Amino acid sequence: MEPDTGRFETYSDGVFAIAATLLVLEFSVTSGHDLGHQLLHLWPSYLAYVTSFVTIGIIWMNHHHTVSLIGRSDRTFLFINNLLLLTVAFLPFPTGLVGTYLQRDGEQAAALAYAGTLVVMAALHQVWWGYARVNRRLIADGTPDSALRAVDRAYVPGVPMYGAVFLLAFFSPLAAVVLTFAIAAFYLPSAALFDR
Amino acid sequence: MEPDTGRFETYSDGVFAIAATLLVLEFSVTSGHDLGHQLLHLWPSYLAYVTSFVTIGIIWMNHHHTVSLIGRSDRTFLFINNLLLLTVAFLPFPTGLVGTYLQRDGEQAAALAYAGTLVVMAALHQVWWGYARVNRRLIADGTPDSALRAVDRAYVPGVPMYGAVFLLAFFSPLAAVVLTFAIAAFYLPSAALFDR
Amino acid sequence: MEPDTGRFETYSDGVFAIAATLLVLEFSVTSGHDLGHQLLHLWPSYLAYVTSFVTIGIIWMNHHHTVSLIGRSDRTFLFINNLLLLTVAFLPFPTGLVGTYLQRDGEQAAALAYAGTLVVMAALHQVWWGYARVNRRLIADGTPDSALRAVDRAYVPGVPMYGAVFLLAFFSPLAAVVLTFAIAAFYLPSAALFDR
Amino acid sequence: MEPDTGRFETYSDGVFAIAATLLVLEFSVTSGHDLGHQLLHLWPSYLAYVTSFVTIGIIWMNHHHTVSLIGRSDRTFLFINNLLLLTVAFLPFPTGLVGTYLQRDGEQAAALAYAGTLVVMAALHQVWWGYARVNRRLIADGTPDSALRAVDRAYVPGVPMYGAVFLLAFFSPLAAVVLTFAIAAFYLPSAALFDR
Repeated sequence: MEPDTGRFETYSDGVFAIAATLLVLEFSVTSGHDLGHQLLHLWPSYLAYVTSFVTIGIIWMNHHHTVSLIGRSDRTFLFINNLLLLTVAFLPFPTGLVGTYLQRDGEQAAALAYAGTLVVMAALHQVWWGYARVNRRLIADGTPDSALRAVDRAYVPGVPMYGAVFLLAFFSPLAAVVLTFAIAAFYLPSAALFDR
Repeated sequence: MEPDTGRFETYSDGVFAIAATLLVLEFSVTSGHDLGHQLLHLWPSYLAYVTSFVTIGIIWMNHHHTVSLIGRSDRTFLFINNLLLLTVAFLPFPTGLVGTYLQRDGEQAAALAYAGTLVVMAALHQVWWGYARVNRRLIADGTPDSALRAVDRAYVPGVPMYGAVFLLAFFSPLAAVVLTFAIAAFYLPSAALFDR
Repeated sequence: MEPDTGRFETYSDGVFAIAATLLVLEFSVTSGHDLGHQLLHLWPSYLAYVTSFVTIGIIWMNHHHTVSLIGRSDRTFLFINNLLLLTVAFLPFPTGLVGTYLQRDGEQAAALAYAGTLVVMAALHQVWWGYARVNRRLIADGTPDSALRAVDRAYVPGVPMYGAVFLLAFFSPLAAVVLTFAIAAFYLPSAALFDR
Repeated sequence: MEPDTGRFETYSDGVFAIAATLLVLEFSVTSGHDLGHQLLHLWPSYLAYVTSFVTIGIIWMNHHHTVSLIGRSDRTFLFINNLLLLTVAFLPFPTGLVGTYLQRDGEQAAALAYAGTLVVMAALHQVWWGYARVNRRLIADGTPDSALRAVDRAYVPGVPMYGAVFLLAFFSPLAAVVLTFAIAAFYLPSAALFDR
């Protein structure tokens, strides 16, 4: 019996939405200090929150669109999908690190953890899609080649882009996070699949 | 290919429900003090919790109703929708600040953060709806004009109302939160879309 | 336009499932003490967790069943539904208090907060159902009277039962929690709607 | 009236996805220490996170598949299902203990708590399935016997396997967690139901 893809979509959708909404738990303030001052100095947390929330939103849409092209699934595909969700669900932790450590001791480690998570996520996206696409293994019948190529174009640049973020984090953690934000705000939407 | 709106509804519904349910995590007590006394003095947290929970519930219903009038979506609309969700998912943080700081040092900053979040959320609601409505860009065929005008009436007062809350927060943070509660309890239901 | 009930079911289902799953966050241990010893002495937390998880599961099933009898909804009903969800989503906080304070100073306040939340929840259930049922206001056409009476029997004992828990909490907080557990384990399933 | 199984699937799916996504909240770092050093020394947390996330993902798929063979449900079955969800939702707590205590004082208690939770979960899975399967009590008409035997093969080894993990935890907590990981990575997928 080949499972319908609806089986893992509910679960995947849930993990994406929950991971995005849990990001807010990384904000915190300390009592005994001026609150207004603290809220202004939380800007690294705001930057990290917006970057991760927008990123998760867009990769959710790409994930959702890609699944619509997939007509069947198998054990390996579901296992890769699960690993992909594992990295998405992990994102609140490095996001919180960036918010806490940016512009302080430890900012390089925080930015590397953040960028590293994104590199792994992008790589798993490509493995996930590649597994389904090779010889149209899991592709729904009647899907035009152009639709497959559009998905290729969305996933292929992920690893080099987030790899560049990772390298940049060695020199300027802040610049690395800003580049991640720029990717989420400008690149991802333009490459996104959701209005093709 | 124009995506069906169902694609982003699951994700949006999830974010609204999770954000509302995460509000409870902002409650906390300190060991070593009389618990009964502490629970009574948590009233700012109860007020903030009820206000935010009711507000999220009603804007979810408006969001859900509005989406039912929308027949297609595009990249820009989905991006605005994502920013809207970002502000909804952020609400537990300023709600927690209001609960912790009301009637203490820092209450003005807490109330301003809370009201500011609501102003941004109301503004994004209007941009979101305006984008879909202009020239019936994304409106489902056959939707009567009266249904569009009902949505207008629900979203237009948001920015001035929460703007008033923001201004009031400079003078009386408590009054600002009470006004937000009154809007959620009295105004929003009467302007709400869900039984039109 | 009368909204279909599906509109608020997704949101309600989400809040119930999230509230139940957030209960686990109330567990905590302190470093520097023997972990095995601590885990054994966490039994009030285990008792509170199991009690609340089972309770939420059963009231979710009753809620879900009741909604299946409802054919339309209106503004007031949705507002009451939202207040009901608000109390369900609040439950992790008093559950955590019971887990932390049982058998310590403050146990009475913790048990009263817990029982009080359950009384309010039971009362809102009855208001919610009563509003829909009076003159079959929101009941789906063709629903037999026997189905309505089954729901009556499920909701009517809630307030007196949890009222008894509340009173018991003044004398023995532990007994009050045990009674709540017994209600969840024995009474609720027998009165439950889900296999009528 | 016999409830359709869809009734409890939404709730179950939600609990699985939320429990998996909450696992990330168990990560934490302490300020005042070198962050890079801390992130490298968090490996017990990474191991525990990956193990639990992959385990929950696979048992969700088995749960989901099994439910597709079930044509009706009753009070007892739903009660057992609820207890099953209770153990799944509890998993983030012992996962966090393993992450915090592995290779430190208390590691045995942490690994026993983790393995014990998995044993209970596996036992409840078997009770849950056994109840539905005996005399095909709740099995959908027309389900072939081979499909039932496939489910048997997936659930029967659970208790002995996790029982072995439990015993191993007395000798080597680390080995017990690694065995749990190996079960999730190698055994469960091969025994899994999702591509039968």
